Amino acid sequence: MSLDHYPRGVLVPVLTPFHQDLAVDDQRFVDHCRWLLAEGANGLAVFGTTSEANSLSAAERVSLLERLIEQGIAPDVLMPGTGCCALPDTVALTRHAVERGCFGVLMLPPFYYKGVSDDGIYGSVAEVIERVADSRLRIYLYHIPPMAGVGFSLSLIERLLKAYPRVVAGLKDSSGDWKNTHALLEAFPGFEVFPGSETRLLDALRIGGAGCISATANVNVAAISRLTRDWKSSNADAMQQEISAVRAAIQKYPMVAANKAILAQVQDAPEWDVVRPPLRALSAEAKAQLFASLEALHFSLDHRVPAV
Amino acid sequence: MSLDHYPRGVLVPVLTPFHQDLAVDDQRFVDHCRWLLAEGANGLAVFGTTSEANSLSAAERVSLLERLIEQGIAPDVLMPGTGCCALPDTVALTRHAVERGCFGVLMLPPFYYKGVSDDGIYGSVAEVIERVADSRLRIYLYHIPPMAGVGFSLSLIERLLKAYPRVVAGLKDSSGDWKNTHALLEAFPGFEVFPGSETRLLDALRIGGAGCISATANVNVAAISRLTRDWKSSNADAMQQEISAVRAAIQKYPMVAANKAILAQVQDAPEWDVVRPPLRALSAEAKAQLFASLEALHFSLDHRVPAV
Repeated sequence: MSLDHYPRGVLVPVLTPFHQDLAVDDQRFVDHCRWLLAEGANGLAVFGTTSEANSLSAAERVSLLERLIEQGIAPDVLMPGTGCCALPDTVALTRHAVERGCFGVLMLPPFYYKGVSDDGIYGSVAEVIERVADSRLRIYLYHIPPMAGVGFSLSLIERLLKAYPRVVAGLKDSSGDWKNTHALLEAFPGFEVFPGSETRLLDALRIGGAGCISATANVNVAAISRLTRDWKSSNADAMQQEISAVRAAIQKYPMVAANKAILAQVQDAPEWDVVRPPLRALSAEAKAQLFASLEALHFSLDHRVPAV
Repeated sequence: MSLDHYPRGVLVPVLTPFHQDLAVDDQRFVDHCRWLLAEGANGLAVFGTTSEANSLSAAERVSLLERLIEQGIAPDVLMPGTGCCALPDTVALTRHAVERGCFGVLMLPPFYYKGVSDDGIYGSVAEVIERVADSRLRIYLYHIPPMAGVGFSLSLIERLLKAYPRVVAGLKDSSGDWKNTHALLEAFPGFEVFPGSETRLLDALRIGGAGCISATANVNVAAISRLTRDWKSSNADAMQQEISAVRAAIQKYPMVAANKAILAQVQDAPEWDVVRPPLRALSAEAKAQLFASLEALHFSLDHRVPAV
């Protein structure tokens, strides 16, 4: 299966901005998406873990995706997250994304019940595919056991690829386990595997990885994108070291709040600090420490208004 | 705070029946609720884990609750589950339950993000209370870390009780950890603690427990109800042993599928076997084993049409 027409490289799990009253700030979201694309993002994996997607209602996701497309973001760079606990929600969000022309969807397994069988997760994905029943559907499996508590085993992926080779297109691997990423790339050539972090991006690209989908791309997309483009150049290892150092500094803090804190600072927009519960904004102290460690890495925190 | 006017005893986390196409079977649900009340249930904790509530969309839950009340189930025996990952969903379902006169709601914490702080969970519950803004609201916290991955610590409960003493009325403890149940009953007199199983029901009642909310009450409510009524009688320990043995036999299998299998058998209604993915129905082999072990306990599996 040739998938060359799909975005590869760095896809951003776009942060979702809120107003102080916790309502979604649609316009800031659209502006942030435009800025990410201008800075070099190859695609936008809106409605992921970093996007607080599971803290949004299904209706909020539909409306936000509509808004993005209305305002001129090309649907063929969009990979919205659509996997919910309830089959009717997953089907509705997936159908909507396909109908609006999104190139793919990023699908969490149903994540409330723990200890479920591969058969049960297979059944869930299969039901979605059969119910959406659209040849344009491309599913990227979202493997993030540390949050979801359930995930996609190699044998389950093999079974899904056998049954739905034209639909099941790839996987985001947020296991945090390089051995798993490596095993996936080895087992399924042509299957688009995106590690959920840029920390081993170069290693992944060298063995056929599709790129990465990383939270910190919200604040460092230009540098990550450069590596996905120039990974065969002689200074690729140095580029990897640089983006890994920034990632390491940020991931000492809760990821969503830390990335939002950085955007609040560089855009001089305190509303970026707002998260929905159960997440919490960074404390002033944590922010000061984070900013100091980023400055030590020459990561610019100067105010800059994104040119969109 | 006197809570004597609320149901105590056995509350049933009502199984949700589906048609073969996975649509909710409203009428069978209403009939099952009527039968449970006729058999001695003191209340119905619809939309819990056993109900596959997180496999239902918010709209399905609203419509099913409407249907129940329309068909004459008294809202003052209802404690619907309303806790979702997304604040807008939790607020909408909670408001709906209060407006329809339900005596309380059973509230999961937002359960997608793991490793969140007590502050974050507090923030979520507080937002729901402030947004629903209705003096009739009574919240029962749903503590089920084995599924939700997050839960309510003693210090968090203390903080919630201090801030919202008239709203935060009790807790369902599905930790499976008797030490936790014991600690809750000791720490918060008057707070209505329902263990999530009948296995230690008598122990709980003897130290002030409110009763239990148990999956297996879907198939054994008369016997459990008898113990909550006659727990001071001389044969209470024997009654406890009997219901514990039935519970032990059932919980060797996945709880939802096992309870549905029993209802399919005793009601001669194979549709009861249908579960939504990611759950799976019991295999014929598992059913045969389950039924044999129940028969060994003189648990009747004879066909009986519920008199409703």
